Amino acid sequence: MELLRNINSPADLKSLNDNELTQLCAEIREYMVECCATNPGHIGSSLGAVEIAVAVHKVFDTPDDKVIWDVGHQAYAHKIITGRREQFRHNREKGGLSGFPKIDESPYDSFGAGHASNSISAALGMAIASEKQGIKRHHIAIIGDGSLTGGLAFEGLNNAGSLKTDLMVILNDNNMSIDGSIGALHNHLIKVTTSSSYNKIRDDIWNKLGENTFRSRLQRFVRWNKGLFMKTSRFYNLFDSLGFRYYGPIDGNDLSQLIPILERLKNMDGPKLLHVVTKKGKGYKPAEENPNIWHAPGKYDPATGEILPIPDAPAKYQDVFGHTVTELAETNDKIVGISPAMLSGSSLNIMQEKFPERVFDVGIAEGHAVTFSAGLAAEGMLPFCNIYSSFMQRAYDNVIHDVALQKLKVIFCLDRGGLVGEDGATHQGVFDLSAFRPIPDIAIASPLNELELRNMLYSATGKDYPAVMIRYPRGRGVGVKWQGEKFSHIPLGKALLLNEGSSVAVLSIGPVGNKCAEAVAKARENGVNALHYDMRFLKPIDTEAIDHAASVAETIITVEDGAVIGGLHGAVSEYVAEKGLKVSVAGLGVPDLFIGQGTPEQLYTECGFNTSQIVEVIMTKAKNN
Amino acid sequence: MELLRNINSPADLKSLNDNELTQLCAEIREYMVECCATNPGHIGSSLGAVEIAVAVHKVFDTPDDKVIWDVGHQAYAHKIITGRREQFRHNREKGGLSGFPKIDESPYDSFGAGHASNSISAALGMAIASEKQGIKRHHIAIIGDGSLTGGLAFEGLNNAGSLKTDLMVILNDNNMSIDGSIGALHNHLIKVTTSSSYNKIRDDIWNKLGENTFRSRLQRFVRWNKGLFMKTSRFYNLFDSLGFRYYGPIDGNDLSQLIPILERLKNMDGPKLLHVVTKKGKGYKPAEENPNIWHAPGKYDPATGEILPIPDAPAKYQDVFGHTVTELAETNDKIVGISPAMLSGSSLNIMQEKFPERVFDVGIAEGHAVTFSAGLAAEGMLPFCNIYSSFMQRAYDNVIHDVALQKLKVIFCLDRGGLVGEDGATHQGVFDLSAFRPIPDIAIASPLNELELRNMLYSATGKDYPAVMIRYPRGRGVGVKWQGEKFSHIPLGKALLLNEGSSVAVLSIGPVGNKCAEAVAKARENGVNALHYDMRFLKPIDTEAIDHAASVAETIITVEDGAVIGGLHGAVSEYVAEKGLKVSVAGLGVPDLFIGQGTPEQLYTECGFNTSQIVEVIMTKAKNN
Repeated sequence: MELLRNINSPADLKSLNDNELTQLCAEIREYMVECCATNPGHIGSSLGAVEIAVAVHKVFDTPDDKVIWDVGHQAYAHKIITGRREQFRHNREKGGLSGFPKIDESPYDSFGAGHASNSISAALGMAIASEKQGIKRHHIAIIGDGSLTGGLAFEGLNNAGSLKTDLMVILNDNNMSIDGSIGALHNHLIKVTTSSSYNKIRDDIWNKLGENTFRSRLQRFVRWNKGLFMKTSRFYNLFDSLGFRYYGPIDGNDLSQLIPILERLKNMDGPKLLHVVTKKGKGYKPAEENPNIWHAPGKYDPATGEILPIPDAPAKYQDVFGHTVTELAETNDKIVGISPAMLSGSSLNIMQEKFPERVFDVGIAEGHAVTFSAGLAAEGMLPFCNIYSSFMQRAYDNVIHDVALQKLKVIFCLDRGGLVGEDGATHQGVFDLSAFRPIPDIAIASPLNELELRNMLYSATGKDYPAVMIRYPRGRGVGVKWQGEKFSHIPLGKALLLNEGSSVAVLSIGPVGNKCAEAVAKARENGVNALHYDMRFLKPIDTEAIDHAASVAETIITVEDGAVIGGLHGAVSEYVAEKGLKVSVAGLGVPDLFIGQGTPEQLYTECGFNTSQIVEVIMTKAKNN
Repeated sequence: MELLRNINSPADLKSLNDNELTQLCAEIREYMVECCATNPGHIGSSLGAVEIAVAVHKVFDTPDDKVIWDVGHQAYAHKIITGRREQFRHNREKGGLSGFPKIDESPYDSFGAGHASNSISAALGMAIASEKQGIKRHHIAIIGDGSLTGGLAFEGLNNAGSLKTDLMVILNDNNMSIDGSIGALHNHLIKVTTSSSYNKIRDDIWNKLGENTFRSRLQRFVRWNKGLFMKTSRFYNLFDSLGFRYYGPIDGNDLSQLIPILERLKNMDGPKLLHVVTKKGKGYKPAEENPNIWHAPGKYDPATGEILPIPDAPAKYQDVFGHTVTELAETNDKIVGISPAMLSGSSLNIMQEKFPERVFDVGIAEGHAVTFSAGLAAEGMLPFCNIYSSFMQRAYDNVIHDVALQKLKVIFCLDRGGLVGEDGATHQGVFDLSAFRPIPDIAIASPLNELELRNMLYSATGKDYPAVMIRYPRGRGVGVKWQGEKFSHIPLGKALLLNEGSSVAVLSIGPVGNKCAEAVAKARENGVNALHYDMRFLKPIDTEAIDHAASVAETIITVEDGAVIGGLHGAVSEYVAEKGLKVSVAGLGVPDLFIGQGTPEQLYTECGFNTSQIVEVIMTKAKNN
């Protein structure tokens, strides 16, 4: 690491020659592989984008020039060379670096990332702002081919292509989102990349650039550039249609290609797109060979690439979903599965293996995933549409306008509901309960554990259920037996009494109910016997359970792994206040703040609902009553 | 109307010959012009799409074949010829036809419309569902060039282009959304439409089709078709990039072009797009000449096309916005205005006239509008981003992820907040308060009247305000003086006491507060003096006002023109329940149902909060206390 240890800001790159820069890239990779071995992260895409990060900071004058990373889990090299080398050891830890570019973390992170496809829109806004203020600076959006399938990226391209503002988009084409890229655009990019005409031009470019000195190349470039336009105009592609000047494809892992072309495109007017092809996992053999697994592999041995086994642990909720939906699909041929580019993340790949024709990966396109599911339902299919909670925010209108309003039965499975941990603020799935509760004609449920999830998925297929959202968290269950258990129907809107008690009542929803049950048990040891319901449904809410709670307790404590505004606390408070019940309602949940990264347990503590905090609230409320 | 009066379903079209069909189109236009003269609607785009509707129902076997209209305000002819001719006289009235296709209104409305860009996703889902069930039927999505700028349409195209399912998209290119089409795609379509190569092909097509009998044409078509592919492949465009087979452009107001090509494309496999060019307002001269005004002109004299003057009335809220933002922009050059294709609908065109360089119409692309605004804010501008409440549902994630999380100051102006009336269920702006309340770092305000709106817009520019949503309704104010009034700062989160009282307290937000004030006055005449606060802010909420209300009253009545779940009723209930205040909270607002079309007054009554209903609730609660 003899070079890397001296890189404390992009200014330190400026004096390095080509060979040194290449060596630096190798050192950055080595450092990333070392750090992520013990402190897991999104190493695969970041390994592929090392040269892009180095080239951009070498060529542009950051942070005055603005680099906007899309999604941002490919931006580790960017973080490492912009003054955060040592902090990178604490990537994704509480108090450490965010796993994504974050606007208040560094002046080099000029816009936040996390959810796909926002970079072009943001960069365009920034570019216009600079223009209006007479500030001359460059704006570079770096977007992956997966993110480009999101409609927001298209909206950004469409607007940028007509405004004609100076803007550079670098398309980092690694031929995948997480599970491999999807859709017609992907096919189009492959066609472009493998077209012999394009490659002819590319070779021409590099042959010419290879000659002589930098200065003479530059002079030649001016002449040659005009010719290039004429040539490429014959090979019209999607980006041309949208008003962008297209360049590429070039090898994005080769600095000797990247740096010269960035230098040359830098001062070209208007919207332009540079298509670079990179390899996910580049430079680390195990990751190159299995890019899917190495998207976020967990801990591993950096020397051998052996991924370390996880100690015996309960099943992940996503696997309970994956196996159960497959089982249900075996006896119901109307069932289909839909995922926006999260087949393996949601474990819908389990169903895909068995029923490849009945599972649809629609690309990073949550809105489309929902409306497409609505279309399937309109014609008699029973779609299980699986979307991470925080990404479902992208499809809020589609759920209202295309599903609920039309009373179409789609079963939404909201994975990653609640605090997700290390992925931080952009990925916390904490607004779903509050956001969807006001929408008519859709039920909202959240299971206590693996078995309840299994039975909810089963019950949701019944005629007594309307469209429903079944929300469950990231990570593992509590270890109850579920696989192969006989299906049991859960009546819509019926809470489950877990403990009869008095004085204080705990109403919980979702797996946080297990903490509550533990807390209730501890409180009982201390002489307070609290009533406890696993509400199971936020909507329709079990008002009998609330009435029961209000009749025996002076305080109801609602506990939810989600925004304390508007969710379970909201539903119970509204009912209590409307009926004028003589009971107060204390709400535990995520406070009115954006919560950053940390372990889930750290975040529960930060929000005030770890087990001992729940015990304390029960004890305090019991004493005050 | 000698033909039209006998058209009771598409079956009645089948026997008509070409001349009769042309006459039928003229009769449909005449009927639409007559009906809309006294019962206003979206006549402009519907006039342009008469031939499309007739041709599609002539060629396809509806309702078994599925026609999916995008947005759907161009679908009047479709409604008229699918058994709803007489009901069309009650278009957009309570109990009458919806102004948009509606899935439960007719089997011919195979999927609901209202919000742009969903048709391709829905049609694709439906097509896949038919395929999986072994049902052979056609699926036709009809989408305008304006709607095509929405990212959702792109997501649908991208997925459809790779799935290769049979699907026909008819691109109805009338060269406008409401204020004229926007963006690079628009430029691209113009290029395609005016390209001499394309037109050469088009002419070839029609010359060949013009020969001889239908049968011989058909035979010739098979041969010729292959040639067409070879020719068009040279004129590669955006749709080709996305895996669609592109045909067109043809004149979409000419049945002699439309019907034969639909017949021919009908049984062609895979995804295909037919580009038709139509004229908004076609066949009615005043509408052809002023398509903007005639998008939804209100009442008019059908003979002369004279638009009837509206009796002296208070200003529209949108105009208060338009004039005020222009005035603010005069002294603050950081202010910019952003609208997703609603410049005139939001009255942002007032600012555009004065500051054309500082107003951005980004096309139908709400997500982009918000993220683009965030980018502008990130670089020091002060964006006023104006989006209709129900369309803001499309940008829910962008508000969270790109604005609030980054603490960027965007001033959102949510026009059409609350029940909008005749546009019906898809357009009711009733979920905004509940949906955005759980989001940290963004304030939510709604003014009582024109002057308060003016002062809120002014106050929002102050350093003491974070990002804020200012929500106001469709339609006209109450007539208070506002224009040219000196700006007055409204402290963030401070309610306004309108009446000191006791026993019952009314807490209202927004212009519905005027009804409440009237109701409070009437109740006082009947001996009940209710406390009344105009809350002004949903967030931060004025807890002192709630404390005051709870201290004098036994019942608080919250009144809001929005979902009673989660909004003001939710906020007040949560506070009351959390503090255990001894007061009950009755919530008036939109119940947990989708509310259809009607006059606003009819809808208030349906929801239970017209003035006399509010009086009644005040009196009943006072008596029960």
